[in-house]
Amino acid sequence: MKPLFITFEGPEGAGKSTCILSVAARLGVPVLVTREPGAGEFGRKVRTLLLEEGELCPETELMLFLADRANHVQNIIRPKLAAGEIVLCDRHADSTLVYQGYGRGLDKEFLRSANRFATQGLVPDITFLFDIDPEIGLRRVAARSGANRLDREPLEFHQRVRQGFLEIARLEPERFVVLDATQSPVELSDQVFDTIQQFGK
Amino acid sequence: MKPLFITFEGPEGAGKSTCILSVAARLGVPVLVTREPGAGEFGRKVRTLLLEEGELCPETELMLFLADRANHVQNIIRPKLAAGEIVLCDRHADSTLVYQGYGRGLDKEFLRSANRFATQGLVPDITFLFDIDPEIGLRRVAARSGANRLDREPLEFHQRVRQGFLEIARLEPERFVVLDATQSPVELSDQVFDTIQQFGK
Repeated sequence: MKPLFITFEGPEGAGKSTCILSVAARLGVPVLVTREPGAGEFGRKVRTLLLEEGELCPETELMLFLADRANHVQNIIRPKLAAGEIVLCDRHADSTLVYQGYGRGLDKEFLRSANRFATQGLVPDITFLFDIDPEIGLRRVAARSGANRLDREPLEFHQRVRQGFLEIARLEPERFVVLDATQSPVELSDQVFDTIQQFGK
Repeated sequence: MKPLFITFEGPEGAGKSTCILSVAARLGVPVLVTREPGAGEFGRKVRTLLLEEGELCPETELMLFLADRANHVQNIIRPKLAAGEIVLCDRHADSTLVYQGYGRGLDKEFLRSANRFATQGLVPDITFLFDIDPEIGLRRVAARSGANRLDREPLEFHQRVRQGFLEIARLEPERFVVLDATQSPVELSDQVFDTIQQFGK
């Protein structure tokens, strides 16, 4: 299979992480499983900054996400792709556009240009959008380890996020694969695995 | 005097810090002396990240500067201005445009929009540009505590930076005051002090 950069987007509680691990095991080729924010040593420091500081303004928060992304792309993702590996990444640029733009109301055009800058133009080959009613997703999150800062936003925020994800998926139908995340983990893993196999031929 | 946001720009070794302390003492009103990057607790953490990591790509470096700036403006500079204070800031948005844009060759239009975003539109009332031949400035830096990462760039880099500062000063003559930084500290302090007094009346 050829090297592919594949991202997984959607809310917490939609089953992204479980699916990534299952698909990575099935692919049986060199696969990097990674995530944003927080990959690598630098990413962990940025993630600590993001979590430690209670009172970051949205602009500061955004810039820390972008610092992490730029480093992640340059020092981790691109080298792995150059070495022929498949990269499975839990959240990437689309999360920034959707959570900060549709969710928090920051300027979407600026967010798009900032993403292009931070990724130095790298765009995923495939993006799987795990679509789910926020009420179901949040219930799943509440049932496990506990909610993070974003999970504690009001329901309207998560509804704007869902609509944002669906809108940007419609704008790039050749990149996005929208999945009904109420399906079982096995069904989701099958769909993702089959799509990657088709694409990578 | 009315609250003023005043920035000091120019290369290391041009005498900015000495001048800021001298002018702050002479103003005799509530004055905040601050700098970028690295003001406040969050700024110190970002500064540590910037200094600790040897291999940051220019895009990551930029985003950390902007994270620091956004937090600095929102949580330190704007509250002080709202409280009626004068803010004297050693380096601000112009340094990013000039060092990253003219120096490192990053996209200047993106840098301008990123600065507007990070500062949420706050623009200094006065910017003093300490202009000096890079050879003289670098000699002064070498004579004191030691060069940082930028100081070790080749001379051509510093010449591009000098021309960049002069160019952006020409574009905004109502904001910039260009000073000949080969003058004595007393002469520089007098010029800065007199300009602020005139402006603040």
